[in-house]
Amino acid sequence: MKQILLSTISLDAKGQDPLHRQLFLQLRNAILRGVLPAGTRLPSTRLMAKDLNVSRNTVLNAFDQLMAEGYLSSRAGSGTFISDQIPDELLSKEGTGSSTSPLERDFPLSHQAEDLKKSSDSKPYHNGPFSPGLPELEQFPFGDWARLLARHWRRPKREYLTGNPVGGSLELRKALSTYLAQTRAVKSDPEQILILSGSQQALHLVVKAFANPGDPILMEDPGYPGIRNTIIGAGATPVPIPVDDEGFSLEAAKAMNTNARLACTAPSHQYPLGPTMSLARRLDLLNWAKEENRFLLEDDYDSEYRYTGRPLSSLQGLDTDQRVLYVGSMSKVMFSGLRVGYLVVPPDLVDMFLALRRDMDGHSPVTVEPALADFISGGYLSGHIRKMRILYEKRQAVLLKLLQDNCGTELEVEPQEAGMHLVGFIRDPHLKDTAVEQLCRQDGLLLRALSTFYHGEHPKNGLIIGFAGTPVEQMPGLVKRLAQHIKTAREMT
Amino acid sequence: MKQILLSTISLDAKGQDPLHRQLFLQLRNAILRGVLPAGTRLPSTRLMAKDLNVSRNTVLNAFDQLMAEGYLSSRAGSGTFISDQIPDELLSKEGTGSSTSPLERDFPLSHQAEDLKKSSDSKPYHNGPFSPGLPELEQFPFGDWARLLARHWRRPKREYLTGNPVGGSLELRKALSTYLAQTRAVKSDPEQILILSGSQQALHLVVKAFANPGDPILMEDPGYPGIRNTIIGAGATPVPIPVDDEGFSLEAAKAMNTNARLACTAPSHQYPLGPTMSLARRLDLLNWAKEENRFLLEDDYDSEYRYTGRPLSSLQGLDTDQRVLYVGSMSKVMFSGLRVGYLVVPPDLVDMFLALRRDMDGHSPVTVEPALADFISGGYLSGHIRKMRILYEKRQAVLLKLLQDNCGTELEVEPQEAGMHLVGFIRDPHLKDTAVEQLCRQDGLLLRALSTFYHGEHPKNGLIIGFAGTPVEQMPGLVKRLAQHIKTAREMT
Repeated sequence: MKQILLSTISLDAKGQDPLHRQLFLQLRNAILRGVLPAGTRLPSTRLMAKDLNVSRNTVLNAFDQLMAEGYLSSRAGSGTFISDQIPDELLSKEGTGSSTSPLERDFPLSHQAEDLKKSSDSKPYHNGPFSPGLPELEQFPFGDWARLLARHWRRPKREYLTGNPVGGSLELRKALSTYLAQTRAVKSDPEQILILSGSQQALHLVVKAFANPGDPILMEDPGYPGIRNTIIGAGATPVPIPVDDEGFSLEAAKAMNTNARLACTAPSHQYPLGPTMSLARRLDLLNWAKEENRFLLEDDYDSEYRYTGRPLSSLQGLDTDQRVLYVGSMSKVMFSGLRVGYLVVPPDLVDMFLALRRDMDGHSPVTVEPALADFISGGYLSGHIRKMRILYEKRQAVLLKLLQDNCGTELEVEPQEAGMHLVGFIRDPHLKDTAVEQLCRQDGLLLRALSTFYHGEHPKNGLIIGFAGTPVEQMPGLVKRLAQHIKTAREMT
Repeated sequence: MKQILLSTISLDAKGQDPLHRQLFLQLRNAILRGVLPAGTRLPSTRLMAKDLNVSRNTVLNAFDQLMAEGYLSSRAGSGTFISDQIPDELLSKEGTGSSTSPLERDFPLSHQAEDLKKSSDSKPYHNGPFSPGLPELEQFPFGDWARLLARHWRRPKREYLTGNPVGGSLELRKALSTYLAQTRAVKSDPEQILILSGSQQALHLVVKAFANPGDPILMEDPGYPGIRNTIIGAGATPVPIPVDDEGFSLEAAKAMNTNARLACTAPSHQYPLGPTMSLARRLDLLNWAKEENRFLLEDDYDSEYRYTGRPLSSLQGLDTDQRVLYVGSMSKVMFSGLRVGYLVVPPDLVDMFLALRRDMDGHSPVTVEPALADFISGGYLSGHIRKMRILYEKRQAVLLKLLQDNCGTELEVEPQEAGMHLVGFIRDPHLKDTAVEQLCRQDGLLLRALSTFYHGEHPKNGLIIGFAGTPVEQMPGLVKRLAQHIKTAREMT
């Protein structure tokens, strides 16, 4: 036994772990591998220390831990033994190191987990040329941002460290409340704002608050897939409402005669088609919600970038009956990795939403909040947005012209009043947008197929092509590649 | 009409908003307040520009936006009018400014929202003397931390900004995988780790993955309220399992003959009572899970701080059948405002958990990830933990002695092998821990009543008293105040 042990154990005085830890791990491994079988008597600590040329304390320390974890047992007067309480199955396995490979097995997941597994977009988050919603990143003022971050974290305020409110720091909520009032005519006390980890969490919370399993929820068709998946994930049923040239068709919703208590809409800039809802329809929508006791989720995802006219006031700002849940995000005006979105809720729903948020992930992380509050209040954000608006307007114009010139026979493209992407409708009904998407994706062009944003019947065929994150110098080459992929897709049909 | 208009409007050339924006907002207000009723004809832009002493473009700009939003309409040849499409109810309200007060109303929330609203702990996150789980904050190496943060954000890598994986950056997952293998004998490939916004999100995801509404889920009694609320929030039923001197009573769980597919346990340091599960019971528990197709949620919330013996290996590290979902957090070893926790899952559950996480809030925020990866790999974290372990051991000893000396007749307190709090059992069955808690809370001493951690019958009466975040110099005075509150509570009974 002594011989086996010594050949197994090799201690390195200069190793990362202390000697007793090395000894513990190697003995444990030897036990788990069956090198030291149950019942084996170990040499005395004094003897082992001498053989291994370490101090007796090192051996005692290792033995103590093995004893505490149940690998060893001692019998009075007769020494220390390998425990016989370790089941056989454990013994034949590696006790340390990396994991084993996936098992082939069936087991019961929740219905929600099964549904989400099926519905979830398995594509990784990845951005590149033509990605819709990808902002310009090279021109973001990272110098200012790093400075604001570091300023707060060299000597952080104590309350940032542990006591952050569930809905985010009051400082940031105040800055946002002012910003939203000025730019979007959103009416809010800071207490009505929840700072969340992205607009996806806001959508998730709102759906969770209003939907029981099986309930219908109205959403625009085509619409944002993140909403559809969230509705499905909550066990509810997304009910597609057609989009006309003013967005969400209230007429269609009324004709449906549904008892859905929540309707999701993007009135400022419908996603992905782009129309803006008129004031008249906004008022009708609010009135419908009031009369029929429904709530409206207003997804205001990119209305900071408007090129024609001025931004229309938000639905929330017109609401006189506290029916609107307003969702916004810093992903488009800063960058999505920041994971900051926000939800503005009616005063009587604040506590309920705080309870839901607390359950979901505790409270808002503090690392970015003080810096972000300064970034907004100090005018850095609005300065950056102004700059980007001019840049994106130019990029849209250049891309539009290139598409019309190079792909005009295949695509019908109109200028967009707002946002970060163009919509190119495919003229030929036999040419599939998904085929073009796939060819483009293989080539690193991350436009999206319009038909995949539909969940009702009769999807339209088209391409959602982002322009905001792509420099104009690159556009001619990229559009040529796109034209080639369209041609290839046509030849394949 | 011209007179009314001019008395209403006041433009400030030095104001924050441009003049056309000021004019737009003030006209809009006047319309919404009924100062300018529907059908009113506006003066020509030329005339109005002259009267207001601004350029005609300013007025045109303001009119354009009012027109776009539907507040104005123009009739060919007869000028511009206030629209009659604005409903009366809107007109009498303020169009801008802060929100109205909460409504008194009934409306249908989801069952989950109703349940969570009821069960949620409404106490704000707040920490102070005796808060369980509050770490020492003054001695955190914020200089290093701010430097690591700023280093990455002055010139961030492009992939941090938009393309972060749903489960967190590979860099951080690698650092954590190594750290967990070394300190907790957790076996994981980095891909099995999800970086989440705190351990609460991990608990939430695991419960969501396994529980359908109505399903039973086993949890320790007493146990962590965050788990209980999450189970209730998912519409499932928490089933209390008694805790004995080895923690989760497997015997009791077996006797219950339940079909619960998930059992939640904190084997390294049961919360809040503190026992450590023996190796024998760990192996039995794993075997039970395997034989009966159940899963185990291992909550390893503070086992970095162990004062007696060495940390026992995690349940996850002993598991040979991929039954364990391992949850940990940076809240105790760094600070809770960081909002970083992690979940280690079996390989065949990775995709499902990524789908659930993606639905819940998209992906992991990137702001802290690169800095945290460096903080772990660079040894800052383990250095800080070593330092804190010595400090907390001292603090525990001092607090224990003070409690025994000053409150020994009322409280039975034993040393804890691990963690950040002591448990003082109240000797007198008539003295209520909640009464003591309330008196202490009013005085800023944030200990917790043990009975509130129970959800089954026969709760024990005691006080959960944190020592980690309280300097020893302050302890004598704090314990005197505690002794006084116990005395007062006694006099009230």
